Amino acid sequence: MKISFFVLIIFVSLAVSGQPLSVKVNEKRIEERIFELAKFGKDSIGRGYRVAYTKGDIEGRSWFIGLMKKAGLEVAIDYAGNIIGKRKGKNPTLKPIAFGSHIDMVPDGGNYDGDVGSISALEIIETLNENKIITQHPLEVIIFSNEEGGTIGSMAMAGHLTAEGLKQVSQSGLSMAEGTKAIGGNPDSIQNAALKKGDIKAFLELHIEQGGILEKENIQIGVVEGIVGIIHWEVTVNGFANHAGTTPMNMRHDALLAAAKLIVAVNEVVNSYEGRQVGTIGKIAAMPGAYNVIPGKVTMGLEVRDLSYEKIWQLFHDIEKRAAAIASSSGTTISFVHQPNESKPALTDKTLQEKIAASAKALGFSYKTMQSGAGHDSQEISQVAPVAMIFVPSIGGISHSPKEFSKPGDIANGANVLLQTILQLDKE
Amino acid sequence: MKISFFVLIIFVSLAVSGQPLSVKVNEKRIEERIFELAKFGKDSIGRGYRVAYTKGDIEGRSWFIGLMKKAGLEVAIDYAGNIIGKRKGKNPTLKPIAFGSHIDMVPDGGNYDGDVGSISALEIIETLNENKIITQHPLEVIIFSNEEGGTIGSMAMAGHLTAEGLKQVSQSGLSMAEGTKAIGGNPDSIQNAALKKGDIKAFLELHIEQGGILEKENIQIGVVEGIVGIIHWEVTVNGFANHAGTTPMNMRHDALLAAAKLIVAVNEVVNSYEGRQVGTIGKIAAMPGAYNVIPGKVTMGLEVRDLSYEKIWQLFHDIEKRAAAIASSSGTTISFVHQPNESKPALTDKTLQEKIAASAKALGFSYKTMQSGAGHDSQEISQVAPVAMIFVPSIGGISHSPKEFSKPGDIANGANVLLQTILQLDKE
Repeated sequence: MKISFFVLIIFVSLAVSGQPLSVKVNEKRIEERIFELAKFGKDSIGRGYRVAYTKGDIEGRSWFIGLMKKAGLEVAIDYAGNIIGKRKGKNPTLKPIAFGSHIDMVPDGGNYDGDVGSISALEIIETLNENKIITQHPLEVIIFSNEEGGTIGSMAMAGHLTAEGLKQVSQSGLSMAEGTKAIGGNPDSIQNAALKKGDIKAFLELHIEQGGILEKENIQIGVVEGIVGIIHWEVTVNGFANHAGTTPMNMRHDALLAAAKLIVAVNEVVNSYEGRQVGTIGKIAAMPGAYNVIPGKVTMGLEVRDLSYEKIWQLFHDIEKRAAAIASSSGTTISFVHQPNESKPALTDKTLQEKIAASAKALGFSYKTMQSGAGHDSQEISQVAPVAMIFVPSIGGISHSPKEFSKPGDIANGANVLLQTILQLDKE
Repeated sequence: MKISFFVLIIFVSLAVSGQPLSVKVNEKRIEERIFELAKFGKDSIGRGYRVAYTKGDIEGRSWFIGLMKKAGLEVAIDYAGNIIGKRKGKNPTLKPIAFGSHIDMVPDGGNYDGDVGSISALEIIETLNENKIITQHPLEVIIFSNEEGGTIGSMAMAGHLTAEGLKQVSQSGLSMAEGTKAIGGNPDSIQNAALKKGDIKAFLELHIEQGGILEKENIQIGVVEGIVGIIHWEVTVNGFANHAGTTPMNMRHDALLAAAKLIVAVNEVVNSYEGRQVGTIGKIAAMPGAYNVIPGKVTMGLEVRDLSYEKIWQLFHDIEKRAAAIASSSGTTISFVHQPNESKPALTDKTLQEKIAASAKALGFSYKTMQSGAGHDSQEISQVAPVAMIFVPSIGGISHSPKEFSKPGDIANGANVLLQTILQLDKE
């Protein structure tokens, strides 16, 4: 009786203050579950390999679904293999507030990318359960399928995963269609996975930053203003392969030397603008590739990212100009082929950003507005609903690596900001 | 009778002038045999693949041995698989004058590298036969085994092919020992292939230039003053692999950007000295090698060639200094590992050079003294006998390519210079 009375007082105080700041997630439980999830999906030498559609992914999903059910969620797998866990609200006419992330990983990846947002989403449900809080709006925890292989689940939910896209072969070796089937989806009717605008009130995603800015600046919360667009070009430098001993320096058309000058030029162009744009040459191959042959052909992968689509193209045109000058002075040709898989930049919702900032402030956390340099499921969902993202620091800015790490306290801070934002949003 | 009388007159005239310049090789026959030899050794799509120890090499050698025998040579295969065809001289106490080249090729190679010197050597024997000229010295036509795979046959003849070297796997897939056995050698007693100093009077090799200098300068004959030394280093650049979207430009340790700066620096260092040195980065690999990951590690192959061993090291030390500066400014480390397969520079014999120049002059050909940027069997043989090389122009300077070409007239000029040089040498 005493306890019930006490609970009643808390509820009254919440209703009065409007800011249930004392409701906090369980940091320890989040940490333990990150370690538990990490056990699923290992390659033959023990490295993380919970790659979408593989045995590890399937087992990890099964474990996660078990926890969702235990937390009282009504769980379903949609046509794209996304896991959706529903919790009823007081007012069934209101649109659901959705939040979540993904649990698949890149080969030899880490235990925080996606996992943090997924486990924290579940944690919020359990925290609400434990605090006997029923929101006005229905809540939905969404665990997207195959984020790392091209945000496949969220792309289907945004309604533009095509038959062509389903034919692509994933890292697992299965096609996207086969993989989707393997995790309980139904790729033959993939269009049924699509949300209509207005189906959900908002989608919120907590995620590790995957960069080093928050840690370097000693800031606890990142309020994401947008997710950068990404464009890839395949670069081909054609020179002339020749004998490295008998061809004098002034008679060479060395494709690798021209490529090297272009790599330096890309870096110079990207650094020549104010802003947070990034440009990378991440892969290169030189043919024929022997000590004693001047390379005749080089292929490279160029990637440029920015929050402005126009700026990406402006950078690219500068790079093209530099390439033309290098080609001309080296007797080579340099060509660029725009790759079809481009991601357009996605801005997050201003009102949601403000709510996240207000929640961080109310909880006493330092925060800053920032962009996401990485692609996320939220990018896709932004096409059918208002979205927002909360970042927590990544130690050393390391991601897609076994060294990926975020401190339990930082993760709990992010989860508490997410919780408060949901509760704020629920008041509308 | 008329004919015999005419022949007698020629012999008398030769004996008097001492310069049998009217004795000429058969240009047409050389050209035809180059095409015939080219038929041996093709890969599945018809490209040249007369790689040492393969079926094509074995069949090409067999065809060549047949021609040698037909030309009256006494043919033997030595312990290293070298083909040696002997022709008796008038004076059996004199040391043999040797000449020849190789008939194996690189994968997808051309029909002139090695073949020109081999077929011209045989042509000289047939020209002497047809002109009924018997030299004072015995003559030896030598076709070295596996030149392209590391001058294996000539290395054995120079006495320093080791048991370790015989274990190396050749392009054919066979070890050098297995390959040597496949072409009729005896690798178990490889030391028996070694010549002692003084065993032969000289070794002369006619070869295509494999560079574009003679063609560009419109010169008919190259008198080779030496064969460059070659040193290889494996270069490793260690940076830090990271997410190409979330890692700001100023927080990167991009191994490929540092490698690119080094490639440019190598070119600048090599061009900063007077002389004919060459330096090449011919191979590169960037790890992990994806559009969206900043390369964490790059490996490259650096090669430097010059006629002076000291200068090669001087260039390398300059490159090392530039590498240290690049590493320091990019937050990477750059290391170099000297590879064990270095070739020391080899100077050709001064007197032989003069004889070649005199023969070219007597025949009315333009000539110049030059270095060989490529390695050759003569380089090995220079350790046990005086050697010299004659170069003829390579069209476009192209070699180790199906586009490799030398004009029949230019080849015949080189063969005639070789013939006259042999006849001059025979007078001593």
